[in-house]
Amino acid sequence: MDLKGVLHLQGWILLFLGASMLTPLPFSFAFGDADAPALLISSGVTSLTGFFMFRTTRLDRDLRVREGFAIVTFGWILCSLFGALPLWISNSVPSFTDAFFETVSGFTTTGATILTDIEALPHGILFWRSLTHWLGGMGIILLSLAILPFLGVGGMQLFKAEVPGPTADKLTPRITQTAKILWGVYVSLSVAETILLMLGGMSLFDALCHTFATMATGGFSTRNASIAAYPSAYIQWVLTFFMLLAGANFALHYRFIFHGWRSYRRDREFLVYLGIIGVSSLAIYWSNLDYYLQRGEAAIRDAVFQVVSIQTTTGFVTADYEQWSTVSQLILFLLMFVGGSAGSTGGGIKVVRIYLLGKFVLAELTRLLHPHAIIPVRMRQQTIARDVVTNVLGFFVLYVVVFAIGTLLVAGLGYDIATSFGAVAATLGNVGPGLGDVGAVDNYAHFPKSGKWLLSVLMLLGRLELYTVLILLLPAYWRR
Amino acid sequence: MDLKGVLHLQGWILLFLGASMLTPLPFSFAFGDADAPALLISSGVTSLTGFFMFRTTRLDRDLRVREGFAIVTFGWILCSLFGALPLWISNSVPSFTDAFFETVSGFTTTGATILTDIEALPHGILFWRSLTHWLGGMGIILLSLAILPFLGVGGMQLFKAEVPGPTADKLTPRITQTAKILWGVYVSLSVAETILLMLGGMSLFDALCHTFATMATGGFSTRNASIAAYPSAYIQWVLTFFMLLAGANFALHYRFIFHGWRSYRRDREFLVYLGIIGVSSLAIYWSNLDYYLQRGEAAIRDAVFQVVSIQTTTGFVTADYEQWSTVSQLILFLLMFVGGSAGSTGGGIKVVRIYLLGKFVLAELTRLLHPHAIIPVRMRQQTIARDVVTNVLGFFVLYVVVFAIGTLLVAGLGYDIATSFGAVAATLGNVGPGLGDVGAVDNYAHFPKSGKWLLSVLMLLGRLELYTVLILLLPAYWRR
Repeated sequence: MDLKGVLHLQGWILLFLGASMLTPLPFSFAFGDADAPALLISSGVTSLTGFFMFRTTRLDRDLRVREGFAIVTFGWILCSLFGALPLWISNSVPSFTDAFFETVSGFTTTGATILTDIEALPHGILFWRSLTHWLGGMGIILLSLAILPFLGVGGMQLFKAEVPGPTADKLTPRITQTAKILWGVYVSLSVAETILLMLGGMSLFDALCHTFATMATGGFSTRNASIAAYPSAYIQWVLTFFMLLAGANFALHYRFIFHGWRSYRRDREFLVYLGIIGVSSLAIYWSNLDYYLQRGEAAIRDAVFQVVSIQTTTGFVTADYEQWSTVSQLILFLLMFVGGSAGSTGGGIKVVRIYLLGKFVLAELTRLLHPHAIIPVRMRQQTIARDVVTNVLGFFVLYVVVFAIGTLLVAGLGYDIATSFGAVAATLGNVGPGLGDVGAVDNYAHFPKSGKWLLSVLMLLGRLELYTVLILLLPAYWRR
Repeated sequence: MDLKGVLHLQGWILLFLGASMLTPLPFSFAFGDADAPALLISSGVTSLTGFFMFRTTRLDRDLRVREGFAIVTFGWILCSLFGALPLWISNSVPSFTDAFFETVSGFTTTGATILTDIEALPHGILFWRSLTHWLGGMGIILLSLAILPFLGVGGMQLFKAEVPGPTADKLTPRITQTAKILWGVYVSLSVAETILLMLGGMSLFDALCHTFATMATGGFSTRNASIAAYPSAYIQWVLTFFMLLAGANFALHYRFIFHGWRSYRRDREFLVYLGIIGVSSLAIYWSNLDYYLQRGEAAIRDAVFQVVSIQTTTGFVTADYEQWSTVSQLILFLLMFVGGSAGSTGGGIKVVRIYLLGKFVLAELTRLLHPHAIIPVRMRQQTIARDVVTNVLGFFVLYVVVFAIGTLLVAGLGYDIATSFGAVAATLGNVGPGLGDVGAVDNYAHFPKSGKWLLSVLMLLGRLELYTVLILLLPAYWRR
């Protein structure tokens, strides 16, 4: 383990983080809020720490796969620790545990909040809170399309050949090239959404904050009532559309520029993703027809918005789904596990993995009929390598195990069954709102300190695709 | 598909079933109940149908693997249909749906009941109800130790070499030999338990009925209050001990005769099985120390009894665990998924599969550190064949998928989240009591007809290890 090299890179990340803490300042001044000093102090502390780490360490040689896991995990933890400073120092969130929880929730693009009165926060701090989503989303695209496949983790190994990515056994400069292209897509879509939201009557500030939360599938809103505060059908459909894009593979958006609709039409994961959203929306619409949802456009919008928001793991809400039928709640609960597409900013298990699990089970059943035949798992006529299939299976088993353990621990804090299931599914899946006491209109403020640290760990585990974090617990990782 | 051959064997099974319906008659006469005619009519109808099927069909050639799935699945369904006749004809259970549910629950050794007043039933019928457990348990031992490994299903492929079992590609007479040995163990343990229960003050009738339910890990009691009706510590510990034995691999009991304690000590699955029971009992005891369980022996007994009863998927209760802490309930809920050992009469996923899943996940994590290494899954220094590992993974994925779909369907009937989770986990895992409205002191009477049929299917799916039933849904199965 080249610890110095790892610290060197962490220093570089903190420098960048410190600089980005200055971007909320224009809004701080424009609204005349008193949060500028907190932002400046936080920026200073973060930048100086980063500078110190950067200067006292050195990248002696190219980093290898093994170091990648530590860089990613510690990078995310450090960013959350320092990113919490503006909230804490400005006294917007007096407890550091709370500020850390909120920032982890931001950077992991979860959107679970401990705030009961969001609108009371100064604008600079609110902007920073939303910006953590956007920066986290940027990091995730880099992670899921360039770094994780290279580390052998994540559903994106499947697409290795399809995006320009690293091929050698060292962290080569090609990652930078991939990152530039995909961030271009990310920024362009963000600009487009901001303009469209402003056309619907949102202020620049609100439009930017909600765009950050949408493109990162985060879910922080600047309003206490989340998107229910914007009853405009136009705004809700615009948000739905961009959530849908953010939950899809960003490589598809990039290829769209050159290949047009074919890029989407030919992608099996994208079609399954749309299919799940369509079927779930219809089922929820139908199961609530009689007693809650009004008929007509508003009813369909309610169903589609909540389904897209939960499946993409954004977590915006326009309706209190806990008032819906149990089936509707269970569908949303299951969607928290499905999650977005690989290569998107969405969380959860990911659609492509679910699809491969289905294919795998069918292959296993068929193998019973022909015990001596070799039956591969295929996707679009292509045979999926056995290593990739076992990687997906391992991920699924780990996900279920972590979910089960997390649920036991949350229940140990005294929560009921629905809340325990909901809180763990919603944090591990980076969704935000869950069930029970952490439902659509609730928040995470009532958790004890230990619970907030536990859920923070779950958010990190889910965001970094389990393996990246858990591998650090293997004694073999630290040997040699 | 040799349909005639399959029907021929089904006829033989029905003949045996019809004959066994006469065994409750002595109790019917001894207690002077009016249920003898119902038993005689049912026996006649079943035997005649069996005889007719047996005579009009023929076993032209040796049956092959492919036919095995149909024989097992249809055999279990036919037995449940005809086995329901005594309950229905005697009007003990006026609705045929209810009678069928109760009988499926019996033969699958689930123990979920639709009866609200069990003690009101005539003794012959009660005896028959308990006997379905014991016969089902007998069938399961045959199934899990001889037939399923031969079909390539079930965790017991692992032990193929350890028990005398079939090796050729035809249903050879060696199955009969295996069956005889293991049924010998089953019968001996049953006799021992009956005697020990009678020494504790139980009548012959009650002792037999509870022995049937214990050895089959079924859970039907002759009392409305289940085992809480027998407050004797002696009786409860005897039942705990025999549940523990029934949830362990019967091949171990057989080998105990020749190899002594070494048989158990050297079995990894058995040790993990004991470990889970120990840790769960302690956790539950500890989490309820303050406010529910009394201190001392009775408290420990309560915790251990419920844990052993749920994990072995028996389903006897001596305490209303829904009054316990949420953690305790969640532990019991998770144990419903773990289930008994392979080669036992217990249900669920089975301990050996859980153990292998853990080993597999560790191997996958390690593989990330050494991407080019081949890291096999091992158990006791032996490498587990990759086919066995993928079979276990497929089973786990299927189990989760069936659980999720089942939960959605039950919620669709209007039940709350805890009940939906509990009812599906408890029927799919062949446990009996679940959570919510199907908890320790509730029953399944309140389910609508559609719900009872749905849960019956889940009981069959769980009992026949999913694959055996689901393979019949593949179009490829019926081709050629």
